[in-house]
Amino acid sequence: MHKVLVLSQHAARYRELLEAETLPGADLRYAADLDTALPLAADTEILFGAPDLLAEVLPHCPLLRWAQSSWAGVTPLLQAERRDYQLTGVKDIFGPPMTEFVLAWLLALERNIPSRHAAQGWDDSRDGQIAGKRIGIMGTGSIGAHLAGVCRALGLATRGLNSDGRRVEGFDRCWGTADRLAFADGLDYLVALLPDTPATDGLVDAELLARLQPGAVLVNGGRGNSVDTQAVVAALADRQLRHAVLDVLPREPVSDDDPLWQVEGLSITSHTAAPTPGSAIVAIFIENYRRYAAGEPLSHPIDFQRGY
Amino acid sequence: MHKVLVLSQHAARYRELLEAETLPGADLRYAADLDTALPLAADTEILFGAPDLLAEVLPHCPLLRWAQSSWAGVTPLLQAERRDYQLTGVKDIFGPPMTEFVLAWLLALERNIPSRHAAQGWDDSRDGQIAGKRIGIMGTGSIGAHLAGVCRALGLATRGLNSDGRRVEGFDRCWGTADRLAFADGLDYLVALLPDTPATDGLVDAELLARLQPGAVLVNGGRGNSVDTQAVVAALADRQLRHAVLDVLPREPVSDDDPLWQVEGLSITSHTAAPTPGSAIVAIFIENYRRYAAGEPLSHPIDFQRGY
Repeated sequence: MHKVLVLSQHAARYRELLEAETLPGADLRYAADLDTALPLAADTEILFGAPDLLAEVLPHCPLLRWAQSSWAGVTPLLQAERRDYQLTGVKDIFGPPMTEFVLAWLLALERNIPSRHAAQGWDDSRDGQIAGKRIGIMGTGSIGAHLAGVCRALGLATRGLNSDGRRVEGFDRCWGTADRLAFADGLDYLVALLPDTPATDGLVDAELLARLQPGAVLVNGGRGNSVDTQAVVAALADRQLRHAVLDVLPREPVSDDDPLWQVEGLSITSHTAAPTPGSAIVAIFIENYRRYAAGEPLSHPIDFQRGY
Repeated sequence: MHKVLVLSQHAARYRELLEAETLPGADLRYAADLDTALPLAADTEILFGAPDLLAEVLPHCPLLRWAQSSWAGVTPLLQAERRDYQLTGVKDIFGPPMTEFVLAWLLALERNIPSRHAAQGWDDSRDGQIAGKRIGIMGTGSIGAHLAGVCRALGLATRGLNSDGRRVEGFDRCWGTADRLAFADGLDYLVALLPDTPATDGLVDAELLARLQPGAVLVNGGRGNSVDTQAVVAALADRQLRHAVLDVLPREPVSDDDPLWQVEGLSITSHTAAPTPGSAIVAIFIENYRRYAAGEPLSHPIDFQRGY
């Protein structure tokens, strides 16, 4: 039997979903917290769950061979010393909700929905549109590529930024991080969808923001480390940015008395951009478990060196 | 020489665009109002401009052979007695902006952008999504079909309503107006994009609204005659509708003291859904003029009987 430990605050939900399936040869145990998990660690061969909890139980699982993360961001596992197991992620299921999130904000801002939502009188002044605009997407993995494909279909020019400037389907052109200023030049919309790695720290800084089209819109749907929050606040103050939407911040949650809530033109969306759909994650685990049991290569492998 | 009369409040803008082009054999005259237009009517062979103004000058143009409308809605010309000329519209250029308008509202409502835009504290409650929802689009012409294609790409189920239920690309299935209640059954989103004709009067009434999924969203981006405003107000009051966006109303503009502005859950967007992009309209006129001068069939012909 393959001893599996499911470790997540959503363990009960995952149990419900997993018990409806057949996983030949699997001995499934569930824990919603570390105290419940530790007594089950010693003979665990497979971990499935939240990276922060998995990182804590990691040193207690001598027989571990594979860990399936239930989040896209796996930083806690990348920071752990242990790397003698295979780590897999869930990257492909976040493209559609992240695309909805980014489009929702760009369209709502162009159409002035915050003011038109509760309009109190006739106002036929002309709104903006996204067609014809230039969008730059930092991060050209499955999420960014999905967004780029939809943006292109809606008539936007699409630029991508990745580590080495390699071409990616859906983007008109890609730049490497070393050429981030050329990438940013004249963009109407800048969307950051970067993982939290040392290479992405502060990529969106004052210098880069100054290269955007004046009145540009910034959306960060990735991780908080890549955006210099104070540079964003300054760019909003001098109208270089028309609006910024930060779904993620270096420290979360942002406390209610933080002055960021009062910054004009800044919307903080409380890490809701791409909610984790439980059933999709469980489906990925089941598919990968079947591959594992059959000795086949797993889907969505994560490279400890690259961090994604 | 073909005597052309350009009649629109945007005549100066159209002159600027047309003078940059070569229209062999055209004698172009411009008028921004009826008083300027009338002395130019007698020898006019071609009219280009706003349907309401064209309808007024129509009886004074004995030599008229062709009228190019600069709007999608041509009701004033359909209501005029005269039909001994060819009428052409501008229908293909409204698909992308109308699609942006509808998506902007559906996404903004699912993502709670009106409240998240100026959020004052951390709120990680889960927002909705449009993927997986059922959208019903009344009107399957070029605008509706464009919207349907984009919605399908975003993972929505797409239903269409047209006069006879004929199949249209981009829609999973279409119903005829006689089966409008079956069409409406269980829809999450209802989008009306209908022209103003006797056949579309009041198609969205209390009976139809009652068939939607409770908590549905209604968007009217077509013409005001197709939606029973008081039925919408009642459906909002009892939460059968979560929100309604009316871009058009039977009488426009809506006066500032109209109680509609105070209705909870109703947004009135002041006929801004698909603004007329001047250069695109002028390009359609130029293309059609060249066809006319060459004796070829014109693009975007309008059938006086059908009304589109």
